[in-house]
Amino acid sequence: MKNLIVAQSGGPTAAINATLAGVIKEWLGKNDGAKVYGSRFGVEGILNENIVDLTGLSEDDLDKLMRTPASALGSCRYKLSDPKEDETDFKRVVEVFRKYDIGHFVYIGGNDSMDTVHRLSEYFSENGITDIVVNGAPKTIDNDLCGIDHCPGFGSAAKYIATVCSELAREVKVYDKENILIVEIMGRHAGWLTAAAALAAENNKEVPYLIYLSEVKLSVNKFVADLKEAMKNSKNVIVALSEGVMIETESGIHHGSEDEVDAFGHKQMAGNGRILEKILKDELKYKARYIELSLLQRCASHCLSETDIIEAVELGRLAVRLGLEGESGRMARLTRVSDEPYRVEYSSVDIKEVANLEKKVPSTWINEAKNGVTEEMLRYLKPLVKGEMSCRHKDGVPEFFVI
Amino acid sequence: MKNLIVAQSGGPTAAINATLAGVIKEWLGKNDGAKVYGSRFGVEGILNENIVDLTGLSEDDLDKLMRTPASALGSCRYKLSDPKEDETDFKRVVEVFRKYDIGHFVYIGGNDSMDTVHRLSEYFSENGITDIVVNGAPKTIDNDLCGIDHCPGFGSAAKYIATVCSELAREVKVYDKENILIVEIMGRHAGWLTAAAALAAENNKEVPYLIYLSEVKLSVNKFVADLKEAMKNSKNVIVALSEGVMIETESGIHHGSEDEVDAFGHKQMAGNGRILEKILKDELKYKARYIELSLLQRCASHCLSETDIIEAVELGRLAVRLGLEGESGRMARLTRVSDEPYRVEYSSVDIKEVANLEKKVPSTWINEAKNGVTEEMLRYLKPLVKGEMSCRHKDGVPEFFVI
Repeated sequence: MKNLIVAQSGGPTAAINATLAGVIKEWLGKNDGAKVYGSRFGVEGILNENIVDLTGLSEDDLDKLMRTPASALGSCRYKLSDPKEDETDFKRVVEVFRKYDIGHFVYIGGNDSMDTVHRLSEYFSENGITDIVVNGAPKTIDNDLCGIDHCPGFGSAAKYIATVCSELAREVKVYDKENILIVEIMGRHAGWLTAAAALAAENNKEVPYLIYLSEVKLSVNKFVADLKEAMKNSKNVIVALSEGVMIETESGIHHGSEDEVDAFGHKQMAGNGRILEKILKDELKYKARYIELSLLQRCASHCLSETDIIEAVELGRLAVRLGLEGESGRMARLTRVSDEPYRVEYSSVDIKEVANLEKKVPSTWINEAKNGVTEEMLRYLKPLVKGEMSCRHKDGVPEFFVI
Repeated sequence: MKNLIVAQSGGPTAAINATLAGVIKEWLGKNDGAKVYGSRFGVEGILNENIVDLTGLSEDDLDKLMRTPASALGSCRYKLSDPKEDETDFKRVVEVFRKYDIGHFVYIGGNDSMDTVHRLSEYFSENGITDIVVNGAPKTIDNDLCGIDHCPGFGSAAKYIATVCSELAREVKVYDKENILIVEIMGRHAGWLTAAAALAAENNKEVPYLIYLSEVKLSVNKFVADLKEAMKNSKNVIVALSEGVMIETESGIHHGSEDEVDAFGHKQMAGNGRILEKILKDELKYKARYIELSLLQRCASHCLSETDIIEAVELGRLAVRLGLEGESGRMARLTRVSDEPYRVEYSSVDIKEVANLEKKVPSTWINEAKNGVTEEMLRYLKPLVKGEMSCRHKDGVPEFFVI
């Protein structure tokens, strides 16, 4: 039997290593002596032959790995070229796969990584390479993957956001003074993560939350009007703001700082919260403070959703089974069968329905005032954050699995 | 028997309500029908007669309260005047205490709040008021109180910092690229909290940590030299930076943004990390990112140190017992008897030895290169973060006790 190689790509999540642990567990469960390799730093590790043997990992290692944040194998943002224009990378992948006797490749990642799966599977099929299968396992805190109810990594990040937005409601009410707290949350084009602040709002009814998703264009006048309305009932307001919200001011549209562009041409946004904070402080003389959750929200292994981690492991296992069943060019997925009791079914989806596409929040899940979410969104979110799980600790400090 | 009133003051912590729960538990345990009142928003609630009756709280309420962050009674930064200049506030306090038949006042807070305890106890004693005692219970994430080994609230904040600085070590190593992460940590004049990053460094040896405490003056040249040295062994470095570090650049000394001053005349600092990030990016062309832990570090009830919470409760109980034993003008304290096994003894200290004073990190606990801490500091820190405890959850989202 041929060996398996697994790699991770895209931005870190708190659940991506749970999927890696699932892949390794499933493969080792087959127990026929075939190896499981890891490619370091995504597909670049295959091109550079930066490969580690993971076959010897113990149950205890895998438990620790499952609760370790970020990508234990490392990640990349490398995009394969179009093979019609340049076959170099593809030939190199095949060469390395032959050398390590690889028959199965599982790529764990988001919509860009699924593009890699798509290109490789197409290349193999068009070039008569029938003894290597390549399948994807989903991950992204952004929850913007198509073809799947929700993504591993999202539930834990959503739980983290619901948690800190609950804690900050206690914090913002401490002084008997007007005080507005702006929390900037990741999400370039999709506001799923910011929507998770609504879970905090549910449990902290005495503090108004204004929630602006990336799908919303927000004029400063509208924001100030929303705030004044909320402050009729409370001196303290929490503003949950997607980094991707388009803010319309008199001087034009601000879309974060927009001063960096990553390898995929994505703009790195940050600074929306700072723009609003400045307007509140300088122009309206309100006491306002701005917090950017930044990287903290995508690697909070001390605040895992048990539901998320269980599903992340299962999708890793499934990606392996897909290959064993001869499938290629597919992504492991889950479909929601019911909200309450929460139940999902596992299957797979053609990678073409996932690669390079983005799933935005449906407009019907945003409230009419465009400053919160609907009951439908809450029903969707609630099961995903259920159950508390944490990283392992040694003497009170996290202990991670390092490959 | 006369009634007790309790209030909270100063900045929020994750343990201040554990001390409040301890005060209420101890008082209710006396079980003679005397009431326990809470003053809302610190001593201002006494002046404004904004008082709630806490006598009816159940064991379950108190358990939830113990795990609720920030100040459940609210806080203030109000400083009592010098009674020799203006007795108004003091007369008002006595008037309200008489109305509610108060014989015991417990004030939970930091060095400014202990000044209030000091002034009140002196005023009572100088004016022949012998039937009201006032004692303090310590809290501050900054750990800068004198007369005590360490402060409730510090252990949980230190655990939070050790936790996120561990997680960020996983995050910073994800890409196979040079990447520097600057984490700005609270601490105006004392670097205790920033030192807690050393606990993360202990568990993540493959990532160099540069740790700069508030006690250190840091020239940009020295910082760049430290960084270059660290990067000989690793592409990735974590810089843990006190908000209070004095940064010397060619254009002078930067000490955060320094643009706000609170009611006590303390400068609100922020922005040291941004200064260093800018230097790294603009002048050295390094990939660097700056994260400010901001309010998140002082209300992280989902990441409590069990040791801290147990001690916080116990010091609340003790502050009540001090009064019952007829003491006044004292602060409940703990003294460390041994590091391993960790053991503390509870006693009390004259409030004059605490009020308005600040305990800095001893220079012998900072390493010679001034970019880390010594073994002594690690021995001091380790027991304080031990044991995992969390806020309560309802359907995966924190559930807090709201007064």
